[in-house]
Amino acid sequence: MYIRKQRLLTPGPTPLYPPALHAMMAADIHHRTEEFRKIYRSCLADLKEMMGTAHDVLMFAASGTGAMDASVSNLFSRGDKVVVCSAGKFGERWVEIAKAYGLEGDVLTAPYGEVVTPERVEAALAAEPATKGVFVQASETSTGAMHDVRAMAQAVAKTGAIFVVDAITGFGTMPLDIDGWGIDVAIGGSQKAFMIPPGLAFMSVSPKAWKMGETSTLPHYYFNLKKEKKSGDAGESSWTPATAMILALAEALRYIKQIGMANLIVNAQMLAQATRAAVTALGLQLFAPGSPGSSVTAVKAPQGMDSGVIVKEFRNRFGAIIANGQGTMKGQIFRLAHLGYFDFADLFATIAGLEIILNANGYSVQYGTGVAAAQQVYAQAAVKPQPVTA
Amino acid sequence: MYIRKQRLLTPGPTPLYPPALHAMMAADIHHRTEEFRKIYRSCLADLKEMMGTAHDVLMFAASGTGAMDASVSNLFSRGDKVVVCSAGKFGERWVEIAKAYGLEGDVLTAPYGEVVTPERVEAALAAEPATKGVFVQASETSTGAMHDVRAMAQAVAKTGAIFVVDAITGFGTMPLDIDGWGIDVAIGGSQKAFMIPPGLAFMSVSPKAWKMGETSTLPHYYFNLKKEKKSGDAGESSWTPATAMILALAEALRYIKQIGMANLIVNAQMLAQATRAAVTALGLQLFAPGSPGSSVTAVKAPQGMDSGVIVKEFRNRFGAIIANGQGTMKGQIFRLAHLGYFDFADLFATIAGLEIILNANGYSVQYGTGVAAAQQVYAQAAVKPQPVTA
Repeated sequence: MYIRKQRLLTPGPTPLYPPALHAMMAADIHHRTEEFRKIYRSCLADLKEMMGTAHDVLMFAASGTGAMDASVSNLFSRGDKVVVCSAGKFGERWVEIAKAYGLEGDVLTAPYGEVVTPERVEAALAAEPATKGVFVQASETSTGAMHDVRAMAQAVAKTGAIFVVDAITGFGTMPLDIDGWGIDVAIGGSQKAFMIPPGLAFMSVSPKAWKMGETSTLPHYYFNLKKEKKSGDAGESSWTPATAMILALAEALRYIKQIGMANLIVNAQMLAQATRAAVTALGLQLFAPGSPGSSVTAVKAPQGMDSGVIVKEFRNRFGAIIANGQGTMKGQIFRLAHLGYFDFADLFATIAGLEIILNANGYSVQYGTGVAAAQQVYAQAAVKPQPVTA
Repeated sequence: MYIRKQRLLTPGPTPLYPPALHAMMAADIHHRTEEFRKIYRSCLADLKEMMGTAHDVLMFAASGTGAMDASVSNLFSRGDKVVVCSAGKFGERWVEIAKAYGLEGDVLTAPYGEVVTPERVEAALAAEPATKGVFVQASETSTGAMHDVRAMAQAVAKTGAIFVVDAITGFGTMPLDIDGWGIDVAIGGSQKAFMIPPGLAFMSVSPKAWKMGETSTLPHYYFNLKKEKKSGDAGESSWTPATAMILALAEALRYIKQIGMANLIVNAQMLAQATRAAVTALGLQLFAPGSPGSSVTAVKAPQGMDSGVIVKEFRNRFGAIIANGQGTMKGQIFRLAHLGYFDFADLFATIAGLEIILNANGYSVQYGTGVAAAQQVYAQAAVKPQPVTA
């Protein structure tokens, strides 16, 4: 047995920003104190700034799915007609939530690896003028594909429907102009580009969404947007907040502000581009070549090789966790993440490891080929040395 | 500004084993309790096992230099004749310590990058039969060179002198049979292959060394080997111990036992071999090709390039700290470490980064060339996937 560091190369949880992890140690703090209220308030303010919105931003002790649930249970009513875009496992989650609350969904499906076009959304809205909401993933984590949220938002804005975007792996990997484009609800999760463990969900709520919520009749208790907004304005959470997580968030947001949200997005985009170049140079095929997102890159396993072998080999040879395909894609594809706290050194190591794994399992590649392609992207992206000032 | 993780690629401090770092958080413990004595005793027992010796092992709240100092102030007397091997900055430190305590040193120097041969030690001992001690570095960190400690030990064992080995970067990077070869004092430090921060020094003391210590007349107080031995037997330290560091050590030793000291050494040796292959494939020259150690590899900067540029570029481009040359070698060489908590993924990333830096600074290399050479070493070393059991 040799040294083999645990490395998270998955699209959530993502690698932790160490100072954020260490900040959790200060959790011997009480949540109903001015000391904590100050931290909570600054987190909400920083989240608004990072998410780039003047809308209200709420925070929940929950995973991202909790906020997805909350958006339905707080803003809609049983029988409401909605349009659900489903291009993968997380699209299917919107379908399940809509069904659980008795919404009448017009489900626009796209095969895994493809996306739902804005034109289909526009047509569905035209076909049912009473549509109350449109649900979509900005970035469909299960396939690595990215939806054209901007064009969809424009189509929805012309109607009475609200546009609800699961941006859980979208934030920090793609531009999202919540206010400018007209995204009524945008949902994020702590364990993605925010670089901290799972446990917190974030949600922006537009005036249009608040208005729709006024007529909502669905039952809810823990997830109460109005109550949470009131609490947040007072620097509190409605229920006991996940204090350690919020201390981590405060530290991570400090770092993200320093990097700049725009640069964080470019960081993911550069790494995604380099990943695509590397796997293509190795003769592998991208799973979502049409609309590749920058949170995670899904790659088809070589002919005759189960992608689970690659996942297992990453774990056993290099201590690295990469993601298999989900649902029907399991065994077909593997996914390399590059959102949040990832850098080029992570990527070079990942590609070098992939080359070794491919060679050791009957798919012959020349060592260094994929790494060189990634290095070329680094060089062409003109990533300049940044003097260390700390 | 983009994401750029801080990475320690230096021969000390070395990368920290995260569970050891986290264990430091339990330092709200009192050192004069049975709870702490249990931990202290187990650390001493595990250190003995890891160092592979039945001799006494002592621990100090000090850096490695403190234990070097202690070996002289506790075992020798003013005017004692000693042989000091000096093949770099740390050999020079032995010279300084011997001088500070008034020992009469026969200094055997070798140019930086070379080593002192066992034959020279043997000759020096023959020339001065009254020699009381021989001092050497197992691994000379400033140049990456490794001394033939085994052959030297055999030469010393035949005489009345004791053999004092600075094994600070030797432990965990080269075989050291303390009892079998006859190493009377072997010194280690926490921030090397032990994977924790600086702050603890370790020392083994042979019966022959204890005997010599009986006639020592040099003054000392904090570093008192006899007192420390007595304290250690009682599960205590003589003075206030660095509790957080010892909690970290306990956790790291648990991991090193799991890896196995022999495998830890092979790990460093494989990484060192791969590093040499990589830099050679890039057309660079090793600084200590004759006796390359496995703690750190010193590499000559390309003709006309200050090695400080490479050091600075690693920091600014990749957030990675590599070591410059020390003393007169500053600007001439750079040093890539691979001792302790290092793995192949670290190395691949380091070499890919080096290739980018060389290209960006006028020394043209083909991307992937060095990485491929390192990958070949990985493949030829037949590093097998190790099922993850945790």
